[in-house]
Amino acid sequence: MPIIDFRLRPPLKGFLDLIMYSDPDRRDRLTRQHGMEPVPSAQAKSMSMLLEEMDAAGVTLGVVMGRYSGLYGSVSNQDVADIVKAYPGRFAGMVSVDPMNRRTAFRQIDEAMSLGLKGVNIEPGGYPTPMYADDRRLYPIYAYCEDRGIPVVVMAGGSAGPDLSYTMPVHIDRVAGDFPGLRIAVSHGGWPWVHEILHVAYRRQNLYVSPDQYLCNMPGMDDYLQAVNGFLCDRFLYASSYPFIGVRRYAEWFRGLPIRPERMEGLMYGNAARFLGLAA
Amino acid sequence: MPIIDFRLRPPLKGFLDLIMYSDPDRRDRLTRQHGMEPVPSAQAKSMSMLLEEMDAAGVTLGVVMGRYSGLYGSVSNQDVADIVKAYPGRFAGMVSVDPMNRRTAFRQIDEAMSLGLKGVNIEPGGYPTPMYADDRRLYPIYAYCEDRGIPVVVMAGGSAGPDLSYTMPVHIDRVAGDFPGLRIAVSHGGWPWVHEILHVAYRRQNLYVSPDQYLCNMPGMDDYLQAVNGFLCDRFLYASSYPFIGVRRYAEWFRGLPIRPERMEGLMYGNAARFLGLAA
Amino acid sequence: MPIIDFRLRPPLKGFLDLIMYSDPDRRDRLTRQHGMEPVPSAQAKSMSMLLEEMDAAGVTLGVVMGRYSGLYGSVSNQDVADIVKAYPGRFAGMVSVDPMNRRTAFRQIDEAMSLGLKGVNIEPGGYPTPMYADDRRLYPIYAYCEDRGIPVVVMAGGSAGPDLSYTMPVHIDRVAGDFPGLRIAVSHGGWPWVHEILHVAYRRQNLYVSPDQYLCNMPGMDDYLQAVNGFLCDRFLYASSYPFIGVRRYAEWFRGLPIRPERMEGLMYGNAARFLGLAA
Repeated sequence: MPIIDFRLRPPLKGFLDLIMYSDPDRRDRLTRQHGMEPVPSAQAKSMSMLLEEMDAAGVTLGVVMGRYSGLYGSVSNQDVADIVKAYPGRFAGMVSVDPMNRRTAFRQIDEAMSLGLKGVNIEPGGYPTPMYADDRRLYPIYAYCEDRGIPVVVMAGGSAGPDLSYTMPVHIDRVAGDFPGLRIAVSHGGWPWVHEILHVAYRRQNLYVSPDQYLCNMPGMDDYLQAVNGFLCDRFLYASSYPFIGVRRYAEWFRGLPIRPERMEGLMYGNAARFLGLAA
Repeated sequence: MPIIDFRLRPPLKGFLDLIMYSDPDRRDRLTRQHGMEPVPSAQAKSMSMLLEEMDAAGVTLGVVMGRYSGLYGSVSNQDVADIVKAYPGRFAGMVSVDPMNRRTAFRQIDEAMSLGLKGVNIEPGGYPTPMYADDRRLYPIYAYCEDRGIPVVVMAGGSAGPDLSYTMPVHIDRVAGDFPGLRIAVSHGGWPWVHEILHVAYRRQNLYVSPDQYLCNMPGMDDYLQAVNGFLCDRFLYASSYPFIGVRRYAEWFRGLPIRPERMEGLMYGNAARFLGLAA
Repeated sequence: MPIIDFRLRPPLKGFLDLIMYSDPDRRDRLTRQHGMEPVPSAQAKSMSMLLEEMDAAGVTLGVVMGRYSGLYGSVSNQDVADIVKAYPGRFAGMVSVDPMNRRTAFRQIDEAMSLGLKGVNIEPGGYPTPMYADDRRLYPIYAYCEDRGIPVVVMAGGSAGPDLSYTMPVHIDRVAGDFPGLRIAVSHGGWPWVHEILHVAYRRQNLYVSPDQYLCNMPGMDDYLQAVNGFLCDRFLYASSYPFIGVRRYAEWFRGLPIRPERMEGLMYGNAARFLGLAA
């Protein structure tokens, strides 16, 4: 069974500038807050160790996302494209855009699609000018993607923004309702607004939910699992949030959860493949 | 033991125009999202099959509500009165009002009371001009009902409005606090804001909670049940949300929940009878 | 093992004017809503019975807070200081301030510190002019405390304000982020916003959480406990909310919860001692 890890930041290029690598103490503290051990390959910033981890976990493809951020550091689209190219078949890339200039954003999207990237990564609360997911400045970008069948990841959950208001699911609810033809994945799964984001997924058939690290031993995980065993089964995306949680450790932990076995393939692979538009 | 099903839409008159009957695919999809099977009597739009279902479930009385809506279609008060009259003793009716004109609303309420209807149904997020439950335009109507001892149902939960903000319990909290003598039932139980609506019920002794279909296999159901077995026991209202969930199927499912047996009579009948002002 | 009860209102002086003592029916109804029996020592307003209760529960120190409130009645700082002095070693005091006048507030804080009180109690939603925890008028006070290493308790949870918006954890999130050197304890634990306040504690290392009475048989208690057994272990504060829950009864109940035994000392004593700056 192939596995897609929908959120995986390898220790390469611009990723090394993000605080998840440049501030290892903070990262390892957060890892421990999930009841997990810090990740040796992350501490060593070793790509070969990460590839071994992916193989051991059975992760065939990792989703790598560009970042254009004030708070957390940036990863250029060129870096993402280079990583995808350097490790053929092991990574799928998402492009980040400048939300303040729609024409630049359109050009970035066009370039990225021509390079084989798979979609657009929007991080509203992380931009140099933080905004909500339903900010008017993002609407031309959502429209551009909807019209072209390009899926969009929106980071809304956890510490994604200056404060808790940036992750409120009402913003995603509006986007999903206003662009019913747009495939949207919410990274960090709207946590801690667990009941609320699950309601949005109940209501909006174009919303995918990926709680990633916030599924892991956090309050609300039982609610996510109830939905995974119910109406969310076709729209849950598996993701480790490496380097916060180890790729292998997360996979072992996930396989131990009370999830219906017949659903594992869809949760760990099929849903993400469909979201990304990968050939079956 | 008699049973009152607090939310039940028979396949009659104006109800047949609502999207729950005019778009059966959407309805049956939502039913399946609750882990339930689509309802044959709803699919057949058969009143005789529904009456058989009610009898089999032991449901002696169904609460039928008028609707004045942009989003979901409308059911006239005349239709509600006709249904109550056509099936003596099987249905209790609630009147809908035009929230944009308080004088029209007062007249509608007076007429409905004279026809034997039992209360007023307010659907803030569903009106042609969607509004919050604490909208200033609704306040004269709440005042009118409080002064006359007329109970009010407020639909706030699930997809009751253009977006998730319409169901936030803070709006109900204000209404319940500003009209302490008004009996208020929140239909759809404030879902997905489960903790929050239960707090409002903890705080406001005039609030009744009816999670109806959103109790059914949704994240948060354990929280509802904890309250049902605790402080909410006298203010929970049983409701199937037929035709989304079958009257009989819901009753069977409900009876299997971990609820204290001595509380079942109050939950399935006594609380609603008291709310509606029915003779004991 | 010593125990600090972080929220305990003895039947003395100004506390007797608070509605928790002046309206015993309301208090006892709320107690029953938690599945607990009304508290004889509270009903008798007997200090000697309370001291016996504290001894029987093993509570060595109770935290007594001044209150400057419109909604709930007030307790002067002088009363708090007098109580601390009258029962040496049994109580630690927190000072309340006038949020509308920063210079008065600074003076109140200075006086209280010189009298041996341990910190400042802020009740944003309870002030004569209710405000949010991140109200601009409170910011000079937070700054004053941060600069002097004085810990702050913010009451945000339960019925702490005119409506549910006053307890939304986004307000605390901003304060904790804007004053990273300020130790903040949230009394009433942000309930009912359980997932959300736990997220803030996950994110902000300077936030302590004390659900007190709202831990007790309320929806969301399992989420609190999951965090207590996880990342919140060093920042949970034990509190009975006496007279709403009996000091002894709460302690017995708490000891029966599924909490890791090796954590009990920190939860019931060590965390509060560190927060208050008590000598080890």
